[in-house]
Amino acid sequence: MAPKNTTQLLKNLRVLMKNTTYVPQALHAYIVPSGDAHQSEYIAPCDQRRAFITGFTGSAGTAIITDSEAALWTDGRYYLQARQEMDENWTLMKQGLPNTPTEAKWLSKTLHVGSTVGVDPYLLEAEWWRDLARELKGAGHVVIPVPENLVDLVWNDRPARPAKPIVPLEVKYTGRSLSEKVEELREKLEEENASMMIITALDEVAYLYNLRGSDIEYNPVFFSYGVVTQKEAFLFVNVSQLTTAAKEALQAEEVKVTIKPYDELAIFISEQLPVQSGKVWVSNHTSYAVTQMVPKEKRLTKLSPVAIMKAIKNETEIKGMEECHIRDAAALCLYFSWLEKEAAKGTQTEISAADQLQKFREEQENLVGLSFSTISSVGPNAAVIHYSPSPETDRKITTDEVYLCDSGGQYKDGTTDVTRTLHFGTPDQFLQECFTRVLKGQIAMASCIFPTKIKGNCLDTLARKALWDVGLDYGHGTGHGIGMYLNVHEGPMGVSWRSYPDDPGLQEGMFLSDEPGYYEDGKFGIRIENIVRIVKAETPHNHRDRGFLTFKTVTLAPIQTKLVDPTMLTRQEVNNITISAYPIKCRDKVGKLLLEQGHREAYDWLVRETQPIG
Amino acid sequence: MAPKNTTQLLKNLRVLMKNTTYVPQALHAYIVPSGDAHQSEYIAPCDQRRAFITGFTGSAGTAIITDSEAALWTDGRYYLQARQEMDENWTLMKQGLPNTPTEAKWLSKTLHVGSTVGVDPYLLEAEWWRDLARELKGAGHVVIPVPENLVDLVWNDRPARPAKPIVPLEVKYTGRSLSEKVEELREKLEEENASMMIITALDEVAYLYNLRGSDIEYNPVFFSYGVVTQKEAFLFVNVSQLTTAAKEALQAEEVKVTIKPYDELAIFISEQLPVQSGKVWVSNHTSYAVTQMVPKEKRLTKLSPVAIMKAIKNETEIKGMEECHIRDAAALCLYFSWLEKEAAKGTQTEISAADQLQKFREEQENLVGLSFSTISSVGPNAAVIHYSPSPETDRKITTDEVYLCDSGGQYKDGTTDVTRTLHFGTPDQFLQECFTRVLKGQIAMASCIFPTKIKGNCLDTLARKALWDVGLDYGHGTGHGIGMYLNVHEGPMGVSWRSYPDDPGLQEGMFLSDEPGYYEDGKFGIRIENIVRIVKAETPHNHRDRGFLTFKTVTLAPIQTKLVDPTMLTRQEVNNITISAYPIKCRDKVGKLLLEQGHREAYDWLVRETQPIG
Repeated sequence: MAPKNTTQLLKNLRVLMKNTTYVPQALHAYIVPSGDAHQSEYIAPCDQRRAFITGFTGSAGTAIITDSEAALWTDGRYYLQARQEMDENWTLMKQGLPNTPTEAKWLSKTLHVGSTVGVDPYLLEAEWWRDLARELKGAGHVVIPVPENLVDLVWNDRPARPAKPIVPLEVKYTGRSLSEKVEELREKLEEENASMMIITALDEVAYLYNLRGSDIEYNPVFFSYGVVTQKEAFLFVNVSQLTTAAKEALQAEEVKVTIKPYDELAIFISEQLPVQSGKVWVSNHTSYAVTQMVPKEKRLTKLSPVAIMKAIKNETEIKGMEECHIRDAAALCLYFSWLEKEAAKGTQTEISAADQLQKFREEQENLVGLSFSTISSVGPNAAVIHYSPSPETDRKITTDEVYLCDSGGQYKDGTTDVTRTLHFGTPDQFLQECFTRVLKGQIAMASCIFPTKIKGNCLDTLARKALWDVGLDYGHGTGHGIGMYLNVHEGPMGVSWRSYPDDPGLQEGMFLSDEPGYYEDGKFGIRIENIVRIVKAETPHNHRDRGFLTFKTVTLAPIQTKLVDPTMLTRQEVNNITISAYPIKCRDKVGKLLLEQGHREAYDWLVRETQPIG
Repeated sequence: MAPKNTTQLLKNLRVLMKNTTYVPQALHAYIVPSGDAHQSEYIAPCDQRRAFITGFTGSAGTAIITDSEAALWTDGRYYLQARQEMDENWTLMKQGLPNTPTEAKWLSKTLHVGSTVGVDPYLLEAEWWRDLARELKGAGHVVIPVPENLVDLVWNDRPARPAKPIVPLEVKYTGRSLSEKVEELREKLEEENASMMIITALDEVAYLYNLRGSDIEYNPVFFSYGVVTQKEAFLFVNVSQLTTAAKEALQAEEVKVTIKPYDELAIFISEQLPVQSGKVWVSNHTSYAVTQMVPKEKRLTKLSPVAIMKAIKNETEIKGMEECHIRDAAALCLYFSWLEKEAAKGTQTEISAADQLQKFREEQENLVGLSFSTISSVGPNAAVIHYSPSPETDRKITTDEVYLCDSGGQYKDGTTDVTRTLHFGTPDQFLQECFTRVLKGQIAMASCIFPTKIKGNCLDTLARKALWDVGLDYGHGTGHGIGMYLNVHEGPMGVSWRSYPDDPGLQEGMFLSDEPGYYEDGKFGIRIENIVRIVKAETPHNHRDRGFLTFKTVTLAPIQTKLVDPTMLTRQEVNNITISAYPIKCRDKVGKLLLEQGHREAYDWLVRETQPIG
């Protein structure tokens, strides 16, 4: 694949950087971040400005264009891909290497003192902006917001912003009406002497208003802002996207919801400011542009309370999450029992198999789509943690190599994310040892008991210990939050050696992934991922009324016992739910559904795969 | 004990707050922090200004005096003591309770807009100052430095600043000359484009210059500042304190060391600034006063490199630490074997026993003094984590209650800190269960294997797991760094659920405490504390050359087996060094010394206490 020729694009962009019709003053550097105006993890094609201007299509990176240079920062996952996709106009800045300067350090050194750096203020988080501006100020430069996005101006065939239908999600799925959620939100505002909240994260808007869309692939969200005051609620959205059902659902709410055009947020806020008696709450993850709409003395910048409300699932959401995981496991049983036969014949590749998995999921009730691009990977490809098969890398699934499959579905009653690692032939002893150590870590986290509100990172080492014992480890976090028919990754908590500064502490009703792994570069990869729910623990004591918690496993797809070395397990581990009770639960819940669906062969496979071990 | 009458003192202070002979402008509030000019954990009597003005003698707290109010902030350990020691002039602000405002929030609300708040700029860390000033600015107030300390002006019988002799510590103890240390420091400066370093932490000065003093009880340090440039080194100190030996040791160094008066730092820095080509490095834990001596554009604020050099012990320091722990364990064997008999007779109390322990330590070679005030505590007193026996609380040591003893010595070749919990009669089953769970946690941390440079807080949960399993926990961290004949608590790393922002990651040669516990309010307390050293681990793999590490236990005092329930231990735990090889090592190393010293009775006790269990 030839790198993208960006010579003319950069020329055009540099002309705009000096044209005061488009910029407030001539720029000496222009920053193109990866994100969208809502700081989304996944972004729509029209927002992939950094990919467009550089040619580099990876998910993470920042581009900076000066009068004479063009540089792209990205991390270790993407060094190779970035180098291949970018032409000679671009310098690759390898983030994470000790000698690579940060964007701010590089700008400080590269620019002449007194330079002007421009950014689209909607695309940078306010905290980033503040740190960047502070560092550049130290070097004598200034950062200014550029209202017109210069990349959009040079992007002739830029895709239109998606405007897919927005539909209501019934209370039978959400468990709580918009009115109830707004009431709770207003209490949180009151506690902070705030009278208005601006919601900018797309999944928070979707959650609060009980609406779903499909503007971003895999994420059932829609472009919008929400504003809640002590008396009203406002939804800023492309009105044409709202279906009649959505409008009716909003009208049926006790809370009065006023619909306003997406691009009228700024005007609206400026009108509201004089009539708001309290502070205006904006999340600490909001763009500089939206943050600046509220003057500093009137602004409360803090983790959005909606993020915490969304993370703690209610009874209905819990029921939905549990039920969709039964259906999702049925799809996986259908898939793996089918794939086992195909692998022996050598008929399938990573891509063709993933397509078939999607079909099995689509047979299940309530499926809307996938929750992310399936990681279907064989042998050495499985060692690439964020692998996604492409025609160039597509590999045949055989009985000789390990197969790692990380996939998930969006169901109307929940979101799934599950990884299974299988071997369809005879695994060697080292693979078995590594798999068993990963499993030991997976069980250690799933079965641990801990006091309410400790931060997720306190649990990370439990999942690594069995690997560390022999000098092994994995280079990713252990767990992330997951939405209820929302984004597959959601905060504010997580389990990692890195701290999550916004983690409000682990609480009953939160759902997390538990996914240790091990990756041998160029050879194989292993990951075992279940979704687990935080529940009350039964403990003989309850020291200082801390309230002790544990996890209940929600994912119900069997773990391949062939890869387990039972001699490495302690009696406690063999007795543990994951190994003893868990397979029985898989068989009971998922087996029953498979039989109801008439899938005898998959049922038989499940029975075979859930034989007790050890 | 009657509370201190502070009426006249506060009156005098409030007069000074308005007297522009002493303050740059009239103050509406004056803050009195707990610390000294070097941000020391332990402070000299002359620096106990907050205790003097409030009457409250606890180690932590901040006092604020306004025109009409006086308030003291302190944490949960001290609510009761503060209330008892302070008169009605003072409002107690209970830190840690949800409704208690921070100092800055309280000032923002209490003062009229446009007020002036004064602080001694030497007593507040620059980061604190910045945060305070920022928050007060938001409320329309200003914080100003007050060069004269107003408390000192009203403190008639203020003790003199200690001026004890400063002596050299020979290279046979330190392992490296001042010149070698300075050379390494200069390399670190160069890496950061800095040409000068200002050292303000007293233990860092003592470490770097290979000098020791006794200006602060339990801490072998002296009041001083150090400055190192690419060509010279300077020591700011009360010159009369330097012994001839200390002066000769400095003169014998390759590096040229210039001695200057303690109070000439500010002038010196202002003279140096124009001739320094690079940045001037000040630790992020330096006072506002010293930080402000360097203009922002010339200043590098970052963890002091000396803190990391000091934390990673060299071969000589390691040898000294190991050897002094043998002598320290001998003292403990003498003590516990003696106390066991006395407890049966009921002749000793917490205080009288602690005095005897000090005598046993003083018999040992190289002892200089204690490393902190001995925690000698019986039954319910042992549940008070920071207990120190006083005549009012002193309790008899008997065969009915648990005895917790946390103590340590300063030896010329190392510092010790060890906690043992013993029962001289028949412990009940719950006590045994709790003790065994604490021991399981202690072993879990001591025996874990982990990759180089993970942060200490990643290990905290390992030490708590056995307690969490049944709904128990302890309210303090698990481990702290420890000096080599320096402060008993030293950073920058530590093991806790709280993160240590300055933790550079765990590395070979660091020494930490490993001290889980369990405390049943009003009944008993348990803590088992060993010092452990980080060493290379022998692992079959070394994933991505991370370099795996583990701990070697340095403390050699036996753990009372009577309190262990062997049925609760796994085979692995029984085989673990702490339980199997450890007692043998105690017997070999400490027993040999006891016999050499002619302490047959203590030796026999040691042999009895180190019988294998399980």
